[in-house]
Amino acid sequence: MSEGFNTTVDAFLGGQVMLEQPAKGYRAGIDPVLLAASVPAIEGQSVLELGCGTGAAMLCLGKRVQGLTLFGAEIQPHYAELCRKNAAANGIDAQISTADLRALPQDITARTFDHVITNPPYFERTAGKASPRADRDIAFAGDTSMKDWLDAATRRLKPKGWLSMIQKADRLPDVLNAIDTRLGDVAVYPISGRINRPADRFILRTRKGTRGPFKLHAPIALHEGEIHVNDQPDYRSEVADVLRQGFAFSLPD
Amino acid sequence: MSEGFNTTVDAFLGGQVMLEQPAKGYRAGIDPVLLAASVPAIEGQSVLELGCGTGAAMLCLGKRVQGLTLFGAEIQPHYAELCRKNAAANGIDAQISTADLRALPQDITARTFDHVITNPPYFERTAGKASPRADRDIAFAGDTSMKDWLDAATRRLKPKGWLSMIQKADRLPDVLNAIDTRLGDVAVYPISGRINRPADRFILRTRKGTRGPFKLHAPIALHEGEIHVNDQPDYRSEVADVLRQGFAFSLPD
Repeated sequence: MSEGFNTTVDAFLGGQVMLEQPAKGYRAGIDPVLLAASVPAIEGQSVLELGCGTGAAMLCLGKRVQGLTLFGAEIQPHYAELCRKNAAANGIDAQISTADLRALPQDITARTFDHVITNPPYFERTAGKASPRADRDIAFAGDTSMKDWLDAATRRLKPKGWLSMIQKADRLPDVLNAIDTRLGDVAVYPISGRINRPADRFILRTRKGTRGPFKLHAPIALHEGEIHVNDQPDYRSEVADVLRQGFAFSLPD
Repeated sequence: MSEGFNTTVDAFLGGQVMLEQPAKGYRAGIDPVLLAASVPAIEGQSVLELGCGTGAAMLCLGKRVQGLTLFGAEIQPHYAELCRKNAAANGIDAQISTADLRALPQDITARTFDHVITNPPYFERTAGKASPRADRDIAFAGDTSMKDWLDAATRRLKPKGWLSMIQKADRLPDVLNAIDTRLGDVAVYPISGRINRPADRFILRTRKGTRGPFKLHAPIALHEGEIHVNDQPDYRSEVADVLRQGFAFSLPD
């Protein structure tokens, strides 16, 4: 059995979602939780997650919004298998395909979705040294271009459907360059550690077939104040509610 | 004489720079002043402004930093002529060419510069109705693509030279798409009316031949507080110092 199958079980949303994930390699942190909280999904809609890993984003979203039809695609078999186990263990229906997003199976390509959500790998393979462990390398670096991620997402959206993504701030040019005229109302919500700091991440929200202008929103600061003043966790209350209570982010249009 | 030649004389930097500009059509506001304040120029360096209009940005910069060699290119003859008059009237040496940035004269193409600065037109001609007045249309809308602006600027930079631009926030994707691998250390400084508002403008700073990652900085809010509480001007002190005293913006790297 590969090292990738040594797992831990971790609590998300204050224990509302329990996630089994590999002990080594890519492990879900707060980013998929922030992504899930930013998705403007309502009861009864359909959601596809591209690169769902062990399911942190889709399961946090499925816990917050009842009655979603959830599909996921994950290229790494043991992550996809853990995602299926995690969905079942959390009592959430989700259909997970082990698939490359450039060659999605017919049960996904036959459908379009109200929402596509994704947290693509944060490093281009060329950007850093390859990891000795292939699964870690795929989850952290990936070998799929941002244009492939955006194209696959765009194709699977219904007209007026929403794409929600979280990504590292330094990839913003790559992401904006990969968005074509099929998408409109592109909105970027920077995420910074604290007020008056550069963005570390951003949430992207865009819709298929709309024509609204690009909008750069005010940053979301994760932590209180300009510096860390003590050893206590200091998430801003809005962020703590998202991470520990499973609340939605109220993102302005 | 066309309406474009009716002029007013307006004070910038608290009267340190007096600018004669057309009474109608494009008139310099605070944006060229914010641009000038953001340029990391030091005494003795060379600066080219593309689309210098009547000279607001280059003359504010020339007033703040002594001993600069200033060149400007402006496609509209009566704006270029006013820019020459304004430079002389403010006691600042500047060589202004009446030229299309896609066909710069030899006295500019024979040189490279420590800094290129530009405040390109804010609207693509296709985006809005054309103005009945051609000069107004060029200054507000322009008929030159963002790639042409970035290419002309990049060609004229020395190795490690700095490009500084101010532009409307909704043009950020166009600007980032127009930046090629000749430029690095791309930094975006959003400018918002107030804290927690979307960006209205951004300052772009990038260098020729460097390789640093893209950085999305914290926004610069122009006004105090989240709402306008009275009829008094309420610029934040850092901004008032830039607009009225001619101070530099201290932008983080």
